[in-house]
Amino acid sequence: MQFIVVLRILGVLLMVFSLTFLPPWLVGWMMGDADLVPFETSFFIAFVLGGLLWLPLRTYRRELKLRDGLLIVVSFWVTLGLVGALPIFLQPTLNLSFTQSVFESVSGITTTGSTVLVGLDNLPRSLLFYRQQLQWLGGLGIIVLVVAFMPLLGVGGMQLYKTEISGPMKDNRLSGRISETAKALWIVYAGLTFLCAILYKLEGMSWFDAVGHAFSTISTGGFSTHDDSLGFFHSFSMELTAEIFMVLGATPMALHYLAMRHGSIRAYGKSSEFKFFLMLLGMLFLFIALAILLARPDSEWLWGMRWGLFTLVSMMTTTGFTLTDHTPWPAFLPVLVLATALIGGCAGSTAGGLKTVRMLLLTRQGVNELRKLVHPHAEFVVKLSGRAISPTVISAVWAFFAAYVFVFVVVFFAMMVTGLDAVSAMGAAIATLTSVGPGLGSVTGNFASASSATLWVGTVSMILGRLEIFTVLVLFLPMFWQR
Amino acid sequence: MQFIVVLRILGVLLMVFSLTFLPPWLVGWMMGDADLVPFETSFFIAFVLGGLLWLPLRTYRRELKLRDGLLIVVSFWVTLGLVGALPIFLQPTLNLSFTQSVFESVSGITTTGSTVLVGLDNLPRSLLFYRQQLQWLGGLGIIVLVVAFMPLLGVGGMQLYKTEISGPMKDNRLSGRISETAKALWIVYAGLTFLCAILYKLEGMSWFDAVGHAFSTISTGGFSTHDDSLGFFHSFSMELTAEIFMVLGATPMALHYLAMRHGSIRAYGKSSEFKFFLMLLGMLFLFIALAILLARPDSEWLWGMRWGLFTLVSMMTTTGFTLTDHTPWPAFLPVLVLATALIGGCAGSTAGGLKTVRMLLLTRQGVNELRKLVHPHAEFVVKLSGRAISPTVISAVWAFFAAYVFVFVVVFFAMMVTGLDAVSAMGAAIATLTSVGPGLGSVTGNFASASSATLWVGTVSMILGRLEIFTVLVLFLPMFWQR
Ligand SMILES: [K+]
Ligand SMILES: [K+]
Repeated sequence: MQFIVVLRILGVLLMVFSLTFLPPWLVGWMMGDADLVPFETSFFIAFVLGGLLWLPLRTYRRELKLRDGLLIVVSFWVTLGLVGALPIFLQPTLNLSFTQSVFESVSGITTTGSTVLVGLDNLPRSLLFYRQQLQWLGGLGIIVLVVAFMPLLGVGGMQLYKTEISGPMKDNRLSGRISETAKALWIVYAGLTFLCAILYKLEGMSWFDAVGHAFSTISTGGFSTHDDSLGFFHSFSMELTAEIFMVLGATPMALHYLAMRHGSIRAYGKSSEFKFFLMLLGMLFLFIALAILLARPDSEWLWGMRWGLFTLVSMMTTTGFTLTDHTPWPAFLPVLVLATALIGGCAGSTAGGLKTVRMLLLTRQGVNELRKLVHPHAEFVVKLSGRAISPTVISAVWAFFAAYVFVFVVVFFAMMVTGLDAVSAMGAAIATLTSVGPGLGSVTGNFASASSATLWVGTVSMILGRLEIFTVLVLFLPMFWQR
Repeated sequence: MQFIVVLRILGVLLMVFSLTFLPPWLVGWMMGDADLVPFETSFFIAFVLGGLLWLPLRTYRRELKLRDGLLIVVSFWVTLGLVGALPIFLQPTLNLSFTQSVFESVSGITTTGSTVLVGLDNLPRSLLFYRQQLQWLGGLGIIVLVVAFMPLLGVGGMQLYKTEISGPMKDNRLSGRISETAKALWIVYAGLTFLCAILYKLEGMSWFDAVGHAFSTISTGGFSTHDDSLGFFHSFSMELTAEIFMVLGATPMALHYLAMRHGSIRAYGKSSEFKFFLMLLGMLFLFIALAILLARPDSEWLWGMRWGLFTLVSMMTTTGFTLTDHTPWPAFLPVLVLATALIGGCAGSTAGGLKTVRMLLLTRQGVNELRKLVHPHAEFVVKLSGRAISPTVISAVWAFFAAYVFVFVVVFFAMMVTGLDAVSAMGAAIATLTSVGPGLGSVTGNFASASSATLWVGTVSMILGRLEIFTVLVLFLPMFWQR
């Protein structure tokens, strides 16, 4: 293990990350925030801390191994979660505990969007902008991680994607490959954000809200600058825009890249995963629409369709925007819609959950296992986008699924042990592990009343979910630390 | 498909099954039941129905294929569930609906033990004996199915057990193999029941209760002749006896057979699955004991230990006996204990749930997948009882796990759609799919207040769970019906 290199890289990360405290500072300064000291102090602390790590080690260079990569990834997210909590913790008006601040920060950087804050509408602009930006950075980070890095590691069957976006990358060294891919993804991601912000602005948001919500839409983060989330605007066109860009955010970024490069949407049509994702969305919407029509054949059905579509897209893409709604839908509907977050969006996107490609693979392989009962000696091969999938990948995906279920059950019970009732614990487990954000019961809207223990369980769950579980679990293997 | 042979066999089954209506009749006659007509009518209907199927087809014989076997298995359980409902439906004093009667009958034959009845203590003796006997027969049936038949079919990785009890069986034809194995298992099963009944009697039960509870202990069925279940007796020694025989019921019957044949308990010690089962029980008990000690450091901790051990063993073996208890334990404790039913007992026993051997295999393979992240090019092999497990089996077990989770989620939501709240729906899904019996919320004690829709979902879930899901799902594959 190259601990010294890991530390040097963390130092650089901290110094770069400290620069992200400046845009919120600028926004606050322009919009007249009373107190910008929290961001100044945070910048100073993070930059100096980073410098202190980097300076003595700056000449120490080694090519990294994959195993170092795993350690770096987990350290990145933990460090950013902790240091990102500084500007929140230091807000004099909020008086948040250390635990709450870290929860909020990790919720941002993991694009979860659960919050301990209430009264968002009256918070300092700098802080609101900072939360939105945190999600946007978290989204960018996860894409780079999942597209450039995870395929090399083979985490949860992600070696599937090894060749997907391999066009522009001749460089096989880890660092080279990551920086090339990151550049391509950055352009796509920034372009989509820009488009989304312009549309929100045209539909009537202020520039502040437009940019902020574009940040949390594309990143499928779900933070808002209003307690009422996107429901604050009461605008059907904004909801449609959000729906489209949430879906785009939950689509493999590689597909956007290919479409842009070839000036054609053929890439989307050739992706089994993307088509399966749209099909699932469509089927689930039909089911929900039917349930709404049967339950509310009165004048509320039209609102029901609008609410159903938005909430389904928001949850299944693991964004977590909500519309204010007090209609007494059948009790299973909100639970079902939230549970679609467990399926989640496509791999290689900002979305969380199990990921559509894994669902697709498991479904096909599951049917094959049934077929084997009928024809025990036949060979059945699973194909995705016309390519046969190797047993190694399938095995990794099965294991990932089992690990996901296992961690879900553990988080669920841990949440209950910290004092939540069964329904809230289920909601909290879904909210944090899938990166969707909102839960059920006492954590439906926010985690403001949650105990410290609940918040820590949630924090760990968010990081586990965001880093595809295995990346974190592997660090607990004694073998990982042996030469 | 040999439909005619299937019908002929069903005819024989019905005639044989109609004979099982006679012992309850006899018990009722001896104990002075007012009305024995329901059993007489049921016997007549079932016997004539069976005869009508069998008589015209009795000369039609063909050797069966495995695929016919799958159809026969599902037909068996469905037919017995329906016909077994007759003596319940016909009870004039109960006034149960057709749906309730079928639910009760299927709950018996699948050894689930959920009930729609209240006021058990005052029911006719004939009916009470019939319910207990139904579970005992269901237990015997499932053992024969799982030990003799499933390994040949390879359902959910059960080909693992192909060689386990292959000693006495030279006959490779399906019918021959099944009858040989059934004979061996019958002796073990009847012997254990006899022992258990004697012990219950010595500890103070009436012969009626002793035999009845022995029937539902060994079969891990959980029906009782009292509303208060085993808690009715307030006897610590009976609880210990129940705990021992529930564990024996949840142990692979093949191990008992080997122990009996060799006059040595070495077979138990050599079984990875059995050892893992005991280890899980032990670890879960330690956790529960700790939670009880921390939550109730007052005088109730001793009762807590007694309650915790009994309830854990009862749930994890998927028996479902309960003790009357009103102590305010932490809310997570009853949910956790019930959820251990999802793990379940050992394969090749009467217990339900996922089965310990699958948990063990998934755990080991899961750790191997983690190890592969550290050493991508190394080969890791999973061994059970010293034998390497083939990738085919592992793949089948992964698929089984995923199917189990999938069906659980579908049953959970279906239960909510029928009107249960989330907690009750979770309880009902666990109760029926794992064959444990008791649930949570509104279905904690019984399903008396459940709607017809809820009961039908439960009925389907019980059959799916009992027949290892795949056996039923495969019938929905178009390929199954093609030549
Ligand atoms: K989110
Ligand atoms: K049971």
